[in-house]
Amino acid sequence: MAPQYAPSLRSRLPLVAFLLETIFLLLFVIFVKIEQHEQFGRESASKLFISSYAEFQDVHVMIFMGFGFLATFLVRYGFSGSGFNVLLAAMAIQWAVLINGFLQQHHIREIHINMKSVIEAELCAASALVAMGAVHGKANPVQLLLMALVEVTGFVVTQWILRALFNADPVYSIMLLHVFGALFGVMVSWVLHREGIKPEHEKEKTDRKTGLFAMFGTLFLWMFWPSFNSALVRDYRWDGGLKLTVIYGTYLSLAVSVVMAMSVSMLTSSKGKMNMVHVQSSALSGGVAIGVAMTAVHAPWIAMTIGFCAALLSALGYRYMKNHMLFAFECHDTCGVLSVHAIPGILGWFAHLFLRLASNESTIAVQFAVYHICVLLITACMSLVMGTATGLFLKWSIWRPQQDRKCFDDQAFWEVNGFVHLHQFK
Amino acid sequence: MAPQYAPSLRSRLPLVAFLLETIFLLLFVIFVKIEQHEQFGRESASKLFISSYAEFQDVHVMIFMGFGFLATFLVRYGFSGSGFNVLLAAMAIQWAVLINGFLQQHHIREIHINMKSVIEAELCAASALVAMGAVHGKANPVQLLLMALVEVTGFVVTQWILRALFNADPVYSIMLLHVFGALFGVMVSWVLHREGIKPEHEKEKTDRKTGLFAMFGTLFLWMFWPSFNSALVRDYRWDGGLKLTVIYGTYLSLAVSVVMAMSVSMLTSSKGKMNMVHVQSSALSGGVAIGVAMTAVHAPWIAMTIGFCAALLSALGYRYMKNHMLFAFECHDTCGVLSVHAIPGILGWFAHLFLRLASNESTIAVQFAVYHICVLLITACMSLVMGTATGLFLKWSIWRPQQDRKCFDDQAFWEVNGFVHLHQFK
Amino acid sequence: MAPQYAPSLRSRLPLVAFLLETIFLLLFVIFVKIEQHEQFGRESASKLFISSYAEFQDVHVMIFMGFGFLATFLVRYGFSGSGFNVLLAAMAIQWAVLINGFLQQHHIREIHINMKSVIEAELCAASALVAMGAVHGKANPVQLLLMALVEVTGFVVTQWILRALFNADPVYSIMLLHVFGALFGVMVSWVLHREGIKPEHEKEKTDRKTGLFAMFGTLFLWMFWPSFNSALVRDYRWDGGLKLTVIYGTYLSLAVSVVMAMSVSMLTSSKGKMNMVHVQSSALSGGVAIGVAMTAVHAPWIAMTIGFCAALLSALGYRYMKNHMLFAFECHDTCGVLSVHAIPGILGWFAHLFLRLASNESTIAVQFAVYHICVLLITACMSLVMGTATGLFLKWSIWRPQQDRKCFDDQAFWEVNGFVHLHQFK
Repeated sequence: MAPQYAPSLRSRLPLVAFLLETIFLLLFVIFVKIEQHEQFGRESASKLFISSYAEFQDVHVMIFMGFGFLATFLVRYGFSGSGFNVLLAAMAIQWAVLINGFLQQHHIREIHINMKSVIEAELCAASALVAMGAVHGKANPVQLLLMALVEVTGFVVTQWILRALFNADPVYSIMLLHVFGALFGVMVSWVLHREGIKPEHEKEKTDRKTGLFAMFGTLFLWMFWPSFNSALVRDYRWDGGLKLTVIYGTYLSLAVSVVMAMSVSMLTSSKGKMNMVHVQSSALSGGVAIGVAMTAVHAPWIAMTIGFCAALLSALGYRYMKNHMLFAFECHDTCGVLSVHAIPGILGWFAHLFLRLASNESTIAVQFAVYHICVLLITACMSLVMGTATGLFLKWSIWRPQQDRKCFDDQAFWEVNGFVHLHQFK
Repeated sequence: MAPQYAPSLRSRLPLVAFLLETIFLLLFVIFVKIEQHEQFGRESASKLFISSYAEFQDVHVMIFMGFGFLATFLVRYGFSGSGFNVLLAAMAIQWAVLINGFLQQHHIREIHINMKSVIEAELCAASALVAMGAVHGKANPVQLLLMALVEVTGFVVTQWILRALFNADPVYSIMLLHVFGALFGVMVSWVLHREGIKPEHEKEKTDRKTGLFAMFGTLFLWMFWPSFNSALVRDYRWDGGLKLTVIYGTYLSLAVSVVMAMSVSMLTSSKGKMNMVHVQSSALSGGVAIGVAMTAVHAPWIAMTIGFCAALLSALGYRYMKNHMLFAFECHDTCGVLSVHAIPGILGWFAHLFLRLASNESTIAVQFAVYHICVLLITACMSLVMGTATGLFLKWSIWRPQQDRKCFDDQAFWEVNGFVHLHQFK
Repeated sequence: MAPQYAPSLRSRLPLVAFLLETIFLLLFVIFVKIEQHEQFGRESASKLFISSYAEFQDVHVMIFMGFGFLATFLVRYGFSGSGFNVLLAAMAIQWAVLINGFLQQHHIREIHINMKSVIEAELCAASALVAMGAVHGKANPVQLLLMALVEVTGFVVTQWILRALFNADPVYSIMLLHVFGALFGVMVSWVLHREGIKPEHEKEKTDRKTGLFAMFGTLFLWMFWPSFNSALVRDYRWDGGLKLTVIYGTYLSLAVSVVMAMSVSMLTSSKGKMNMVHVQSSALSGGVAIGVAMTAVHAPWIAMTIGFCAALLSALGYRYMKNHMLFAFECHDTCGVLSVHAIPGILGWFAHLFLRLASNESTIAVQFAVYHICVLLITACMSLVMGTATGLFLKWSIWRPQQDRKCFDDQAFWEVNGFVHLHQFK
């Protein structure tokens, strides 16, 4: 094959996907059953189902429409952005159902599928998709697929460690998924650094139309984020309104953060113009930050203040830190996940700590602080170590990465401008 | 700055947004709390929550996806269309929660956030977004932001007056929002008239792709309109099926109006071709009209007839009235809100009056007629007066409006075709 | 009119649409009422309403967003794809409510609208939209409208025959809609065959942007398919979890089929590149197949295996069969509905048969097999016969089909790149 083409994945991707899918299928045959909720009695099961199916769908839409179309912002990478998103998420969910089942219900030899397990699997997939943002456009689908599965494994194992050591609440999985995913992705991107990727890579651009497709994904994430944050918060009836507080808090935090994202984007531009990708990225930071702090937030204005600060930090970080990361550390972070997910996540973590310290008496407060710090440290360490290891594994040339020139370009993997009639002999 | 550039808003928008957001935040600190629904008992609160959260989400999707993407139809104004929509709606909602709270619950010094208050705030935002349609592409974001907040204030005050004078039902807020918004917007557009805006302004066009983005917003509005109209109709259990009647009525009315919109668009074109923007605008008129008449409609065919007539009038109005408005009154109405919202709204108002007169005995009928006429007159007057005043206020050159040539153009406010890496020194 | 233009439909479409709409309206006046659910008691009616309104909305979104944007994949046919979809679906739903009512409730002289009847009407519209796929881009809106109404009639009559002869369950309507629609559409396309349609018709192409619009429709179908399949499965409470089994089964089947669709698309391409339209079409096959087999599937792995096989067959069929169909049988199937709907549907039918035979004792099994085979044969025969008849009827030149060169082109029916201000004198 002439050097101007990207290496063909015809002998790689179908084989890897087919093998993995067969393994998953066999594991499903042996272990997985559908839970019938019979233990709750039919009446209450029906009620449970109605509310949790709606929550599941909101999260489902965020994963496939939201992340998928947010990833179409590059002018030549739309097919890959949305297409690979579906591929990775569909595989990650199947794997997350399995590995979550193994680690959570290890005393029984059966994994039960229910709404909760499916929602948890989708949240694990979300974590993997955050990590994808850092290497967006610079890795081929085989690399992405392997990276997604390792990320999910790492994330689930981290949760299991936290549960085993500290008896941590499953709500912590939402709180940590952004930080874990972002650090993991940045480490992979750092290890896989390509000399040819400069800040002005000719294909790393948006245009009027891809900006709108990305807006579309952003809005789906933005609108349904209250459901995302509250999905694992236990039902209203048993928990004195925490679910409602989370929903209203996320809603208000996001309303403030989108306004701040636009303002900062215009203020920090020398021409006084907003940048679409900048606005979209930072508009979501309010949801990330409140997601970590949410169980400690009890007033609307606190949520709004967190959204305010998160958007401020995230927008400044996106504007000024991305280039420094590339020049100083040779780490190229396509979607700026460090600014969009890691910084607001850590801000939310501090807010959570501060709010708990302020509202509790000293003994409990110190106890909580130790616990809270350990959780962050373990998550960050696991993420950094596994990210580095994954990067080294993906550097292996057997995975046939595309050339630098073919980065951010669909033509490496997709028939673009194709006829609808397919020809087998061409 | 050279004359070929639009005036920079770098010193305006961030300042205004930052100031307003800080004021809102302070007001939230002092007044707003989250309502815990405890007074209903937990069981029924949970049930209430499930149904009203779903309704809230439908309205939420309409405001942000529906209006946002409907506003992307201009070929060079997509970023502004969807971006400013989010900005305005996010601010308008925060302000509407506050001002609704002040005027509705003025005897207590606390504003409670609950699903109802958030849905009402989104409906107020919808009213502001209707008004935006008339000045779409001709005002800068600072002007739009101020206009949106004044519009919401005016709309809420009008509702308060109607409630104080006539003890009017809150469902009237849906019935009136289109008429109020449309007249307000048209007056602002009339006062802000620019000599340079001709019917063939080179940038006031659609293309194949922006037409599809707008289709996308239109369909979200079209599909979820039944939820929009029924959102404030009290729950099924207490109201003998009115909610169901509204849902089916809106559904059927819209089904008829989309068919009629296409037919009229083709029939009135000399080439026998449909126009996408024309079809999209008029397809929604059935939802507007039935929204005003809905509490008096008790048979599916009446809803369908209203949808039929609304689409007919709206499509004819859009085709023939828009140019006359511009030539005769020097009033340029970009989205044709007069045809899309005001005319169907008033048609629905007449249908409501007629249906009530036909079904009630004479004393009650006359009483209702007087009340119904007063409501429309007060709404229209408030809207016209406040719209004119707002227009005069926005004419002030301190707001730095763009030049005529820069109307309908993202380049005045956005970095278009930008690199994803932002550069602070350029 | 000069020969280079497509024949104007100005004297056809508005007339036909207006006439049909008036007839529907009159039938609604005479027969249709809104059901108030009073017989169930208010409490349980409210609960029923909440859950079925959510299901209805999911199906509604699939019909209008899903099918509508899936149909925008052709580079010059996006307005027609999404616009005609709304037109046809809106008319088909009204007609389906009527004809379903006549044939189901023929002993009363009233048709009651309720959530179930509306969902059934939307499923009938789905069947018509599947048929549209085969003639996509090759028929004008008048032909499409007539075809849709005949298709709905045929589908409803087939259901009625099956109910009358075999007392078949209404769930069978979902099971059969894909097979009925696909065969119907292919027969119409075969009868309407145009010599000028070659595999390399210059307008039968996608590009980067229309591929994304189609992705968008595909994802809406893909995400909400679990609701589509389970919409007519009776409520959880009365049916021991069948609804949940269907939801999880469809979800997993689709997750597997999207992975397999991508793999096969890359594997069967000589350049080792995926084709977007190919992937989108085959990704949905898992939902079709599981929809036919669903009531017999009781373990997740069986659903996944069905999704696996459906995507394999569908992707191979789309790649290799489409051209053979055109060369060997002179049948051009634009969206490949034969591979996307008919083949997976029949695969699901075999899976259903096999699963029932395996799980039942012999007498019941044989009885079921006879019944099952009759259902498929009657459906297929009705579909083929009615499709051929419809094709012959639509060949009539009174319907003014566009020329071959004007196929797959919006310019035959829409003002493209139009000014937003409409001019009555141009």
